[in-house]
Amino acid sequence: MNLAKEALELHKKLKGKIEIKSKHPVLTKEILSLLYTPGVAEVSREIAKHKEKVYEYTSKWNTVAIVTDGSRVLGLGNIGPEAALPVMEGKAILFKLFGQVDAFPLCLNTQKAEEIVEIIKNISPSFGGINLEDIDSPKCFEIVDRLNGSLDIPVYHDDQHGSGIVVAAGVINSLKVVGKKLSEARVVIAGAGSAGYGTAMMLHAIGIKNILAVDSKGIIHSGRNDLNKYKQKLASISNKGHLEGSLSNALDGADVLIGASGIAGLFKNEMIGKMSDDAIVFALTNPTPEIMPEDAKDAAIIATGRSDYPNQINNVLAFPAVMRGLLDVRAKMVNDEILIASTYALVDIVKDELRMDYVIPLPTDERILPAVSKAVRDAAIKTGVAQVKHK
Amino acid sequence: MNLAKEALELHKKLKGKIEIKSKHPVLTKEILSLLYTPGVAEVSREIAKHKEKVYEYTSKWNTVAIVTDGSRVLGLGNIGPEAALPVMEGKAILFKLFGQVDAFPLCLNTQKAEEIVEIIKNISPSFGGINLEDIDSPKCFEIVDRLNGSLDIPVYHDDQHGSGIVVAAGVINSLKVVGKKLSEARVVIAGAGSAGYGTAMMLHAIGIKNILAVDSKGIIHSGRNDLNKYKQKLASISNKGHLEGSLSNALDGADVLIGASGIAGLFKNEMIGKMSDDAIVFALTNPTPEIMPEDAKDAAIIATGRSDYPNQINNVLAFPAVMRGLLDVRAKMVNDEILIASTYALVDIVKDELRMDYVIPLPTDERILPAVSKAVRDAAIKTGVAQVKHK
Repeated sequence: MNLAKEALELHKKLKGKIEIKSKHPVLTKEILSLLYTPGVAEVSREIAKHKEKVYEYTSKWNTVAIVTDGSRVLGLGNIGPEAALPVMEGKAILFKLFGQVDAFPLCLNTQKAEEIVEIIKNISPSFGGINLEDIDSPKCFEIVDRLNGSLDIPVYHDDQHGSGIVVAAGVINSLKVVGKKLSEARVVIAGAGSAGYGTAMMLHAIGIKNILAVDSKGIIHSGRNDLNKYKQKLASISNKGHLEGSLSNALDGADVLIGASGIAGLFKNEMIGKMSDDAIVFALTNPTPEIMPEDAKDAAIIATGRSDYPNQINNVLAFPAVMRGLLDVRAKMVNDEILIASTYALVDIVKDELRMDYVIPLPTDERILPAVSKAVRDAAIKTGVAQVKHK
Repeated sequence: MNLAKEALELHKKLKGKIEIKSKHPVLTKEILSLLYTPGVAEVSREIAKHKEKVYEYTSKWNTVAIVTDGSRVLGLGNIGPEAALPVMEGKAILFKLFGQVDAFPLCLNTQKAEEIVEIIKNISPSFGGINLEDIDSPKCFEIVDRLNGSLDIPVYHDDQHGSGIVVAAGVINSLKVVGKKLSEARVVIAGAGSAGYGTAMMLHAIGIKNILAVDSKGIIHSGRNDLNKYKQKLASISNKGHLEGSLSNALDGADVLIGASGIAGLFKNEMIGKMSDDAIVFALTNPTPEIMPEDAKDAAIIATGRSDYPNQINNVLAFPAVMRGLLDVRAKMVNDEILIASTYALVDIVKDELRMDYVIPLPTDERILPAVSKAVRDAAIKTGVAQVKHK
């Protein structure tokens, strides 16, 4: 049986991947009189008096909304909120499995940034954090910018922040393997959507000075008059040499090529041949990457999003553990220091085992959750965005 | 240890009453490749092609949002969304325990009817039904009126619909016990909030012709110029004799007195003495009723909301089973026929055992779920609001 058919059958059998359960194992009449009326009234009174006690007496501290408008789901495009729901449920089970986070999918019937912002503000009392997912760019960036810091809970944008963390960790380790310096590396990013933008920002934040971002119109440079606010920001942190032209032009002498284009088969081995020696190629489009590993003959290191090849670059390496850390200290926002600390926590996990086909831990590596969540907690405390200490 | 202290300690120990869990017991790499990427993409594609398949492949069919703005929580008043959260979590565990419904609490940071309506419309793709809860009246009625029938999922307002069902069932059985006819009974309702309004509408719907509703200003009559739209509606279905005056005036010769006032100790036994023989008194304010059963010496039948006395009138007798029935047939709205059918299903459960101190089933009666959910399904199908047949 093929994967698609098997997936449909399993989904049909389960009729939904998640359920909402009581944490108390036995619900006698006596227990219910404590957990519901009349006993619960005292709990409500306490929270009404001291609002922050909602974190002690309810599920808020550990509950995250996975919010999407279904406008850019996987590689499937604008398929709407209903079709996005199975993906968000899948994400919810990963949050639980890898981060012990309770995540609930909220698929919205509006695709207007303004309305999405208002809805998230208005539902925030039930949640300890927000995970934005599969919202088209640049709208997703606007939403993050407007929410992050204006709520008292963190807003994590997995397509941007998560991709940034995991790709940056992989790039740092790959450069180590081939013996090149971060500060001297030349990096080309194909794609300037959520993942491309998030990756460029993270690579810039960790000290990579030479970045070229390429979108469907070619190399992004400050002279282009078709750039939205976020692509202008990209231009401002990249392409100091004001290079113009195509992806192929960008590749001359590049050390790292990152595919976040959404276009299967975009890269050819001849293009990799134009790069410097020991070329590093991350072809991250799913399920079919910009180039298949067996075709990238001239690459020293090749990474993809696939679990059936080495070096799987997958956001699950970041989002459950990062959210765990954010929730643990009630971080009121996500900042660069938190993202950088998460990146280096991932980097350090494989430092003693580093090799060309092992630049990033496996998603099942049990060292990830404690290491990354601790890095997040420490960074949040250090930068003053943590609202409590971790117990 | 007293109840309040015990409730606080249990809540602190649990740190939230609900959790979100994977329904698949084992999450291997192979299972995850079906439930998340890459397998889930096929499921999303199917739903994108046939939107109604979201009911087959996701949790939508069984998931309900418990929506509140915290403006009128229990008897505690406008304590806000955070303080409402433990109550809504308690409701979620009752939905699961008694109705096998997955319910998620959404406590909103706005108390504007307009915004609440928009939020509910916009979050509806994730849910199979909405349960409105603890929203101040008349705002709650406006929200129900604007949503019920305009969404493709049902909007159930427990304080109004649930109270109506359970009180009406208790009244029908009580009148049977004392040998009085529905069509001739004189009923006085003290209180015209959600429960009072919902009860009056249900009693009217089941054929009680003589109703007096009394609010804090006295008997509601069409001559009053301080009535909002919903109290005008109350006036139009009650008080045919245009009686004016106080609660005490209303009681002369009444057969049934229903307390939905929110005022502990509002009724005195002397007031019951003014009623007709075999007086039926439902004193439903929680936790301290309008009159304690031991003080209602002149009542033939006394019911309260309390579990430590006979005849407990509690909405849990209705909401889990009604929602079960609504979800089973994907009812697109709640209508009077569904509410009436639910009422008579409850009535019938105790018909062979009926006595003065047993006019309503116990919340733990296992006959409730099958009987009430079936009545709801049948009524929804009969009135054309069911979107599928029950399997």
